[in-house]
Amino acid sequence: MPALDFRVLTRDETSHARTGELRLHHGLIETPVFMPVGTRATVKSLTPDELKACGAAIILGNTYHLYLRPGSSLIRDLGGLHRFMSWDRCTLTDSGGFQVFSLGHLRDIDEEGVTFRSHLDGSPHMFTPEKVVRIQEELGPDIAMVLDECTPYPATRDDARLSFERTSRWAERALAAHRRPDQALFGIAQGGMYANLRRESASQIVAFDFPGYAIGGLSVGEPKAMFYEMMGVSALALPEDKPRYVMGVGAPEDLFEAVTSGIDMFDCVLQTRLGRNGALFTRDGRVNIRNARFRSDERPVDPWCDCYTCHTFTSAYLHHLFRAEELLAYRLASLHNVRWTIKLVEEMRASIRQGVFLEFRDAFLRNYRVVNEVVRVEQRAKWTAAKRLR
Amino acid sequence: MPALDFRVLTRDETSHARTGELRLHHGLIETPVFMPVGTRATVKSLTPDELKACGAAIILGNTYHLYLRPGSSLIRDLGGLHRFMSWDRCTLTDSGGFQVFSLGHLRDIDEEGVTFRSHLDGSPHMFTPEKVVRIQEELGPDIAMVLDECTPYPATRDDARLSFERTSRWAERALAAHRRPDQALFGIAQGGMYANLRRESASQIVAFDFPGYAIGGLSVGEPKAMFYEMMGVSALALPEDKPRYVMGVGAPEDLFEAVTSGIDMFDCVLQTRLGRNGALFTRDGRVNIRNARFRSDERPVDPWCDCYTCHTFTSAYLHHLFRAEELLAYRLASLHNVRWTIKLVEEMRASIRQGVFLEFRDAFLRNYRVVNEVVRVEQRAKWTAAKRLR
Repeated sequence: MPALDFRVLTRDETSHARTGELRLHHGLIETPVFMPVGTRATVKSLTPDELKACGAAIILGNTYHLYLRPGSSLIRDLGGLHRFMSWDRCTLTDSGGFQVFSLGHLRDIDEEGVTFRSHLDGSPHMFTPEKVVRIQEELGPDIAMVLDECTPYPATRDDARLSFERTSRWAERALAAHRRPDQALFGIAQGGMYANLRRESASQIVAFDFPGYAIGGLSVGEPKAMFYEMMGVSALALPEDKPRYVMGVGAPEDLFEAVTSGIDMFDCVLQTRLGRNGALFTRDGRVNIRNARFRSDERPVDPWCDCYTCHTFTSAYLHHLFRAEELLAYRLASLHNVRWTIKLVEEMRASIRQGVFLEFRDAFLRNYRVVNEVVRVEQRAKWTAAKRLR
Repeated sequence: MPALDFRVLTRDETSHARTGELRLHHGLIETPVFMPVGTRATVKSLTPDELKACGAAIILGNTYHLYLRPGSSLIRDLGGLHRFMSWDRCTLTDSGGFQVFSLGHLRDIDEEGVTFRSHLDGSPHMFTPEKVVRIQEELGPDIAMVLDECTPYPATRDDARLSFERTSRWAERALAAHRRPDQALFGIAQGGMYANLRRESASQIVAFDFPGYAIGGLSVGEPKAMFYEMMGVSALALPEDKPRYVMGVGAPEDLFEAVTSGIDMFDCVLQTRLGRNGALFTRDGRVNIRNARFRSDERPVDPWCDCYTCHTFTSAYLHHLFRAEELLAYRLASLHNVRWTIKLVEEMRASIRQGVFLEFRDAFLRNYRVVNEVVRVEQRAKWTAAKRLR
């Protein structure tokens, strides 16, 4: 049995959206799928039981963080990531490339790999494509990611080219090093904010015939219209019959755009990070539960939502917990945001199957107030343009 | 139907321990009972569902904290404390006296009541026995507590007398002010660290015929032997047919002593506070899960415990969560400590019913390493002496 089996089940006729079935070592996943992030082998504040109740089919861990603490060999000795965190559904670890590149002056890149200092204790380390594969073979997720060079924004065309070409060479080395038969290794396409380079990078990575492909280097500070354009270009350059994964994307409007572009998988820390700050998703837009208008509001945060938080507590109670800075606040809000997002993606899948995805998307977006007006205008223009092109 | 109905079901023949049934407006409670503390309408980090799974039959709220934030009239408007926090089992609110007295220079006491400044915003407030009753009638717990004057330790005999006599006068005023027929108001016996005053205070409070009685002013810095002696004296001075509640007691060895003395109810923040600090109860004593010896320990924290944490995770995983300061750590540890304590008290009840309470207690204490050696020695001496007296 291969480590990964992917089948497209439905294709939307008016966009690139599709539903599929992704079979991994630990189970079957319906796509498109939102993957909550458990950086340090824990989706912040939530238990495995709660994640299951939220409908999470696959969660992420982070290679950089787990390698430094508690250490990938310890996790291997304790039976691997699944057993360590008591999660028997699927997992994916990202390569740690993004985290290492974010270290700034603490890291140094050459052709061999990245030398960096731990943010925990300053100890020196090196990540090479081979080593990152070995670490992830110790961790044991269902899906591992190659070490890539995340092209910063902005970057010149020349720098973006040098960067994605190195990513291609590293991808080839990673693939050659990968051994675990129960683990699928994904390639990552880069290319900065240049459509031609995006296509070229994707084509180079695809030539290695990975079982799945990610799109990296997006949502790193560029305008939304540019982000959406690059995501669309990369997605189209990746094969139809393999899962496509856009990394680090999670705002509801971005998820709709990703699915419209034919993306099957996405992950984001936004749900739990916003949750801890009191920002909660609703069908009307994000709300800050600390706001005085919730002080005596007896309604749930979002009546559409079926999570434990919305079923059990009033907005007034959540408001109180956040004002009092009670630990329960962070859990209830994270739980809500995770379930709310997974439910939204469930409804996206249903709408694709029913052939009404764009109607569902447009109805959602008419109602959903995106946080930043400038962004919203850009997005609408982009959508209008995209509609015209189809 | 009265707000409270209490029946003693079993009496231990070799100690004052007893089991009973306490019927309150929101349900039936088996005693002795450990009551987790939810100061600000939340038992820190835990949901109502988890508290039920822990076997919690009654939880505490705090009058002082809830009066200041979110306000008792808001909680009344939102349907009362139970509905506010989505807890349909029993609740008790303490009077806020202890918190107000702890404010030190921010408060001023006279015969009328206590004037104090909010620790949140410095705003001036006054608590009188009548006002504290009214606030608790707004909050709506099953059991409300009278405003008492918590005698500090140390206090001279004269000061302790003045203090408990005022507590008696305040108790009478509280009883006269109390109206809610579905709520039981408990009196509080004080008396400092003087056995005669303890008896005198209890006798004055008992004369008002409250439906239940608490013992206050203990575990406030006095040596354990003194604490145990005063608890025993107060308990014996309270009526056999009413529930006896010792406030703020929760260490396992203290719970055994309380039950031995004929106490039926106890509450403590220790379980959740220790949990947040990584200190976990086991049958062998408290352990600090941050300790390096747990780094690769695949066993549960305490194999005897049946909580979700012990059933689901290794000590190594908890160790990792605490080292990484992950929010999940605080929940899992709090959940464990609460369930562990409730299970211990369940076993105390079973052992009383079976007539083997002292055997159970002694077997537990032989194995359980109390944190402080000095305390442990005092305690053993006390127990030995108590055994000789029986």
